This record gives sequence, structure tokens and C-alpha cells, in this order.
Amino acid sequence: MDSKHIAIVGAGLVGSGWAVVFARAGYRVSVYDPSEAVRRGVLSWAKSTLGSLHSAGLVDDPTGILEKIRIVESMAEAVNGAVYVQESVFETIDVKSAVSLDIDKHLSPDAIVGSSSSGIPASRFTEACANRKRFLIAHPVNPPHLVPVVELVPAPWTDPLAVDRARQLMTEVGQVPVSLQREVDGFILNRLQGALLNEAWALYSEGYASIDDIDATVRAGLGLRWLFMGPFETIDLNAPGGIADYAARLGPMYHQMALSRRDPKPWSPETIASAEIERRRSLTAEQLVQRREWRDLVLARLAAFKQTEGIL
Amino acid sequence: MDSKHIAIVGAGLVGSGWAVVFARAGYRVSVYDPSEAVRRGVLSWAKSTLGSLHSAGLVDDPTGILEKIRIVESMAEAVNGAVYVQESVFETIDVKSAVSLDIDKHLSPDAIVGSSSSGIPASRFTEACANRKRFLIAHPVNPPHLVPVVELVPAPWTDPLAVDRARQLMTEVGQVPVSLQREVDGFILNRLQGALLNEAWALYSEGYASIDDIDATVRAGLGLRWLFMGPFETIDLNAPGGIADYAARLGPMYHQMALSRRDPKPWSPETIASAEIERRRSLTAEQLVQRREWRDLVLARLAAFKQTEGIL
Repeated sequence: MDSKHIAIVGAGLVGSGWAVVFARAGYRVSVYDPSEAVRRGVLSWAKSTLGSLHSAGLVDDPTGILEKIRIVESMAEAVNGAVYVQESVFETIDVKSAVSLDIDKHLSPDAIVGSSSSGIPASRFTEACANRKRFLIAHPVNPPHLVPVVELVPAPWTDPLAVDRARQLMTEVGQVPVSLQREVDGFILNRLQGALLNEAWALYSEGYASIDDIDATVRAGLGLRWLFMGPFETIDLNAPGGIADYAARLGPMYHQMALSRRDPKPWSPETIASAEIERRRSLTAEQLVQRREWRDLVLARLAAFKQTEGIL
Repeated sequence: MDSKHIAIVGAGLVGSGWAVVFARAGYRVSVYDPSEAVRRGVLSWAKSTLGSLHSAGLVDDPTGILEKIRIVESMAEAVNGAVYVQESVFETIDVKSAVSLDIDKHLSPDAIVGSSSSGIPASRFTEACANRKRFLIAHPVNPPHLVPVVELVPAPWTDPLAVDRARQLMTEVGQVPVSLQREVDGFILNRLQGALLNEAWALYSEGYASIDDIDATVRAGLGLRWLFMGPFETIDLNAPGGIADYAARLGPMYHQMALSRRDPKPWSPETIASAEIERRRSLTAEQLVQRREWRDLVLARLAAFKQTEGIL
């Protein structure tokens, strides 16, 4: 086993982003995807992405990093000798089960497998693997080379040492690992996102404010402190005596709000249609692609900002 | 009435921040607080704050701005002739009612009064005012000179034209106004914050992750896109076909999560105590003051970053 060799299995946008993450940290990266067309696209995407990271001051030697990424023609070639395998294939139980079994066959002793699964827990697709105690979820946010958080979620049979080693590796390559003690639907990130989105949809559907004004409440309000402190540190600094003082003052108010949402409504087709109209007034369907490019540019410059400020 | 004259009533941290907001936009600002000790502190605080804003590249002429702020000895002197009054007094119904009646007596024809109230709606303390149709909530985030969002919330008797004019004024002075159509507990900002906090406390109390890892999920994950797009634009860009496409794919999953929280628990004393221990391990009680200064420094540099990127 080669401690500086990483395998990427599944090379869509998520897998390709992971290749850049590991290569820029100095690892040699073997990338495998069952589709030849997908494999062919990886290096040109990585080249252009590394160019953007270079422009944002986030990498020094884009050419040297690109040379660390190698496209391979088989699962065996990718996984053999790798210390860590990041799997990012299509998110169905069938596909993930088959690919996990295939990775399992070629896995080096002690190598660990992290799945980019955003919703399906590892217990649903790794049970049959001989090395299942070295499989876990390593869920990134897209694109992983710009948004550093990674949720590490063990299956009931995952060895805690495998989680620890995945956490060390993620820290070493500059990601920000978050460890869950056990599986839960949506993990942490999508549960927090969902809680806020559900309230946002409810307020919008009840006619309290426009889509853009609800967005502005976050991007010009809540988002500023959350970006560098998170929600708990924010409230810790927001009462003279810290988090316990804040919770004593405001906990009951927030609990009342939760009680007022005991009968949650699904996001209704009418509300969705109306939100779609508002959004398309702000941004036409044709502008979506260009706006995503802008988003990634801002994310790169924001990553550089956080680096300068020393905020992880 | 003088269209370039603003009155600040209540000059604690929030009121003083508002004085800086209006003065840096070119308004002459009269500041009144019933406490002489509070009045005496305003100018030295404003001087030091404007120095920090200058260092962050956010204002060009701190001395010129400071000269626009005048401390006055009476409510009449502050409010007479002002086009807009920002009230930021202690947040109880009794105090706000008495101060609103006092402002009301001195109010110029057509002048508008915005209250910084973070929780009490205007209908609870402006009913008896002769000019009550020109009173509304203008709720900032602390500190208002660094976090631009302002929630505008009318009472049932507030003239929609008063809300419109407050919105124009807030935009003109560089804040980001958000308009609510009617009153709701917690307005938008604290409802969104509460939804996320309630889920964060639940996940923590159920032992899924540490305080710091839950914070990291936001500051290294969700917070990055929310900071410059808000939650709706984030999901609009996160599915090929935009927000309706995203809602069709993931709405049911988020609704399931809401259903799993139909029996919301209060933030329990045991959980709060345990969170307090974790936070004090990351940051001692003695370090809280210093960390708040660091927070405001980062907020200033973040405001400069957003200005450079053209993000409101």
C-alpha cells in the first residue's frame, strides 16, 4: 500500500472535485469511472479548475498538481495500493452496492473507503463487503475543492479507527471533517439546511415576505456570522454570559416557534410554482449556467478570504 | 422638516451603531438617550468604531463622519425636524410605549419612526400614538454598521407608504431592507435562526455530533453559499432545472425531516450545561470579550469583501 496514493471512483463533478482536493495536497490520484466519455473529460476539467484556483491565489503550481492526477481504465488499477478510496458514483442503493463490492475486491489491507453519498447511509450498501468495517460515508458539499466540509458517518459495523483515520486524512488535505456518532437521515448538513428551508418555505407560502427578501435576511444578516463561527459560537458571543446565558434568555422563545410548526406542510406545488416565477424574474433559465460559474468564482475568492483570516 | 436630519433615540450599542450608519451616509444625526452616562460614551465609541471601519477600507473620512453626530440633551431637540427617528431603547412594552408617546409628541409631519425591537411587534406599543400610522419596526442585527439587514415590519395601522419610505431610506444608507407584509413572532430573521438552532440543539442533545462539529458544518459548509446567495438562490442553482426542479427532487425528503420533529423538546438544562462545558473548552469565559472584538474585526473585513464582490 502506498500512503501517498488515493483512488477516485466515479468521476462526475463530485469525483473530479475530490481529485483536485487530493492532488493539490500532494497525493497521487488515480481516477476511474466506468464511462469512457466521463474519464476523457476529467483532465480538461481539472486543468480549467486549477487555473481558477490559481487566479484566486489558492494554489501555486497548477501544472504540477495536474500531473498528479492519472486517469485509469479499470477499478483494479485505481484501487490497488491506494490508502484511501473516495467513491462518488450515482446515488442509488443498487449502483452503490455493486460498486462497493467491486472496490472491496481490490482493496489493500487497512485502506479505507469513503462514499460521497449525500443521503443513503453506508449501512444500506456496504453490508455484503468483506472489508465493510473500513467503509463509511465521507459526504462533501459540491464543489468539494471550494467548500471544505466533509461529513464522516459510520455504519454500525464501521471500525472507529477507520473514522479517525479518515478524519486525519481530511484535515491533512485541508478539508473540514465533521464526525457523526451514528447514522441519521440527512446527516447534519441537510438536516440543518432542511430546518431552515422548511421555515423559509412556510413563511413564503404564508405571504410574509418575498423569495428575495427571505434570501436577503440570510445573505445580509444571519449568513455573515455563521460563515466564520457557526450557529453555536454565534449565540455564545451574543449574550454577556455566553451560550448558557443566551439559552436561558431566548431558548423559550425559540421553543415557542418550534411549537407553532407542529403541523408541517409539504412544499406545495402552488408555492413552488410561485417561487419559480419570482426566481426566474431575478434570473432567467438561460442565465442559470452563467450564474453557477459566478457562484464558483465567488466561492474561490471567499475561500481565499477565509484562508487569509485563518478561519477553517 | 430637514430631509438630511436623523434622530437616534436610545444610544446603547444598537443606537450608537445606527448613528454611525446614518452619519457615514451623509446624514446629520442627533442622538438622545435619557441616561447622561450613556450619552457621554457615544462619541468616543463612534470615533473608535469609525477608526476600525477606516482600517477595513469601509469609510474614507472618519473625522468628517464623526462631525455629523451630535449628542443632544432632550427628546425634543433630537426629534424636532428629523425626517426619520430610529428608536433603540430597552426592550419591554412599558419602556417602548412611553418612549414612543414621547417621540410622537415631537414628531414632524411626515416623519417616520422605526423601532429596533427584535421581538416585540409595533402593535404592542404604538397603538396610543397620534401618528401611529408612521411607526413601524426597523429591526437590525447587531452591530448595524457591520451587518446590513433591516427587517421592516408594519403594525396593522402602519401606512404602507411609511414602509416604502423607510425601505428607500435604508437602501440609500447602504443597509439591506427586508419587508414583512404583517407581524409574526420573531419576524423572519429569528424564525430562520430559530429553526436552524432548534435542529442543531436536537442533534446535539441526541448525541450525533459535538458543538464544534455542528458549527463547522455551517461555517465550512452551508454558510459559504448562504453568505452571498441566501437559501432560495442556493437551491435554485443546485438542480439543473432551478428551484422547481430542486423542490420536486428534494422537497419530500425535507418534509420527512420536518415530520420527525413534530414533538419539539425545549432546550433542556442538561443539554445547555453540556454545551456550555464544550464552548468554555474552546473559549474561556475570560476570552469572550476579546473574541467579540475579533468577530467585529472579521465582520468589517467581510463587509469590505462583499463590497468588492458587489454583493448586497
